[in-house]
Amino acid sequence: MERSVLKFGGSSVSDFTKIKNIAEMLSRRVEQGEQLIVVVSAMGKTTDQLMANVSSLTSKPKDQELALLLTTGEQQTVSYLSMVLNDIGVNAKAMTGYQAGIKTVGHHLKSRIAEINPETFDHAFIDNDILVIAGFQGINDDFELTTLGRGGSDTTAVALAASNGTACEIYTDVDGVYATDPRLYKDAKRLEYVSYEEMMEMSALGAGVLETRSVELANNYNISLYLGRTLSNVRGTWIMSQTELLEKKAVTGVALDTHMMHVTISYPLPDNKLLTALFNKLDEGSVNVDMISQIINLEGLQLSFTIKDTDAVQITTILESLTEDFSALDFKINEAYVKISLIGSGMRDMSGVASKAFITLIENDISFYQTTTSEISISCVIDAENGERAVHSLYQAFDI
Amino acid sequence: MERSVLKFGGSSVSDFTKIKNIAEMLSRRVEQGEQLIVVVSAMGKTTDQLMANVSSLTSKPKDQELALLLTTGEQQTVSYLSMVLNDIGVNAKAMTGYQAGIKTVGHHLKSRIAEINPETFDHAFIDNDILVIAGFQGINDDFELTTLGRGGSDTTAVALAASNGTACEIYTDVDGVYATDPRLYKDAKRLEYVSYEEMMEMSALGAGVLETRSVELANNYNISLYLGRTLSNVRGTWIMSQTELLEKKAVTGVALDTHMMHVTISYPLPDNKLLTALFNKLDEGSVNVDMISQIINLEGLQLSFTIKDTDAVQITTILESLTEDFSALDFKINEAYVKISLIGSGMRDMSGVASKAFITLIENDISFYQTTTSEISISCVIDAENGERAVHSLYQAFDI
Repeated sequence: MERSVLKFGGSSVSDFTKIKNIAEMLSRRVEQGEQLIVVVSAMGKTTDQLMANVSSLTSKPKDQELALLLTTGEQQTVSYLSMVLNDIGVNAKAMTGYQAGIKTVGHHLKSRIAEINPETFDHAFIDNDILVIAGFQGINDDFELTTLGRGGSDTTAVALAASNGTACEIYTDVDGVYATDPRLYKDAKRLEYVSYEEMMEMSALGAGVLETRSVELANNYNISLYLGRTLSNVRGTWIMSQTELLEKKAVTGVALDTHMMHVTISYPLPDNKLLTALFNKLDEGSVNVDMISQIINLEGLQLSFTIKDTDAVQITTILESLTEDFSALDFKINEAYVKISLIGSGMRDMSGVASKAFITLIENDISFYQTTTSEISISCVIDAENGERAVHSLYQAFDI
Repeated sequence: MERSVLKFGGSSVSDFTKIKNIAEMLSRRVEQGEQLIVVVSAMGKTTDQLMANVSSLTSKPKDQELALLLTTGEQQTVSYLSMVLNDIGVNAKAMTGYQAGIKTVGHHLKSRIAEINPETFDHAFIDNDILVIAGFQGINDDFELTTLGRGGSDTTAVALAASNGTACEIYTDVDGVYATDPRLYKDAKRLEYVSYEEMMEMSALGAGVLETRSVELANNYNISLYLGRTLSNVRGTWIMSQTELLEKKAVTGVALDTHMMHVTISYPLPDNKLLTALFNKLDEGSVNVDMISQIINLEGLQLSFTIKDTDAVQITTILESLTEDFSALDFKINEAYVKISLIGSGMRDMSGVASKAFITLIENDISFYQTTTSEISISCVIDAENGERAVHSLYQAFDI
């Protein structure tokens, strides 16, 4: 019997009407002879509400307790969905993460899945056509409940697909993966297929539909991933191995990351002590530096780098503390920049993509301050005000 | 190190202020060198809210799913309480029922505790002074979550006390066990000690402070039970073995059960078929009959019995269906009766208690329609309007 894994995020199960509609859809799939593993998140704002409760109790909740609390969210959703399925005549069973045999390792709130026992499913499918499984959670070697961190329900679904040898359908509130953000370019094309690598670049670059980790996992186990809108007839996007994709274009997508900040440091001496102190502090503060460029000459040292805008407070503290030891240090934190990226597996085999991108920007009077390239992507830091226009020009120049 | 089990019911943990106050109290006990196992219920109306959600989804929820849903209530309370304890510097760990090794058997929603592994606690107490454990729940042999039914958190606490060989303190919203309901008799005495047997009679007879099952379990394992008000300095009641109690009185308490109905059936023939049909139907409908009396003579058959008032709809359906086969059947359902009971282990050794009780009622013009006696109790069905007056007269007559 064909087995599939389907995942519904928090916004797809945010009220009981949506849960009932999903149950009807699942029922039709079962009638067509499928066995389904359905992964769900906590309903809508449940997790936010639980976190608000915690804030009223303590500013430093213990991780074990916080994980134990948060896992109740998905446990409630699986109970509700399974009840409705049984109510409409489908044999379904709800299971928590640990009941589904999801063993985790690592930090309580950012665990990774270590192991899934597929026998659990064969056994449970004897009496059931649908297993409804709590996403985002598992149990560690100390028999403590854990959560998987951001995008954890997607990871649960992909891991379950891997252990069951099935494809994984991820239902959310977008129609699929677009060549660029439709809010920036209204004619943006929805991609029917995209490779794992391209999708990972897009996730990491801020396209934000799927967490990199889930795509990486799907890639490692060669699980085809589908991404589409919940209860929609619009055809979404399949994310799969490059070798299975026939068509190859140089550029598949354009991503614009607006959640970044650009930092420039000037110092009148070419001083290695300053750089060592800086990178030590960035490391201690868990601030991830993305693009870096450095100019050292007789006039001194100039270093530029980009970071996530969520590190704004942290970076200011770090730089101010540096001026105590290096009083001649001057720094500038600029949020008026964005990062535009071209992504495409085809870049590997086609030359001139970078040149063409730079020429396009220049012809459109768009300055770029820093650039990086990988095997399948090119990124440039540009002025925020030029972001949307850059997306348009590149989209058209590369005939995406 | 001294180990104790403490249990706090839903009304004791109904808001975060109460949870913080309980945490402070527990902290002081730990400072005095105790190791504590703390059992908590779901916060206030949480269970009611979850049940309301279920009603909006289905009228026949599957038991497994309902149990899975309801257990989230206590799972949240243990998380919150343990967070607060850690916040104020106590080493505490929250655990669900199954994490605490509570194995159950039976119906998902009315399970019984089959086994508790005490090693779980010795291990967890290495790094912690308090273990906060979800009451009312466990896990069965099929690795499915279960709930224990009415009074289940008390049962959890008593079972944990038994497996840890400690006493069990149950904190609730009453000051202890009274010789009779203080709402009926304002000078009612609070008992310092009461025997298991007396307490079981009082629970079963409607005094309603503790479920019979918890007291029975405490009796079986000879666990001393304390019952008192949460965060109060008023001294509550210890429930323990009769042999440990010094003082013996004929009557320890008076209980009034107002949640009963009295049913009388008349039939012009002494017909065994009618009785067989009746008791079969009562059995099928799970209607428990309490006191029964029967008169069979030449004029026919008259049967009276009492049942719980929660079976009101059920009994009417049953009796109406009987009139289809037995058209001459006449029945009367009367809710204007109550049951008054005298309880005391001393009755065993003292004669004349029943006579004295009847005389007291007669002297006070209180008619009684049915009576039953056990080794340590006497119960009479009387008119509801005489209930309070009967409590007063008996309380004074027996110098309770």
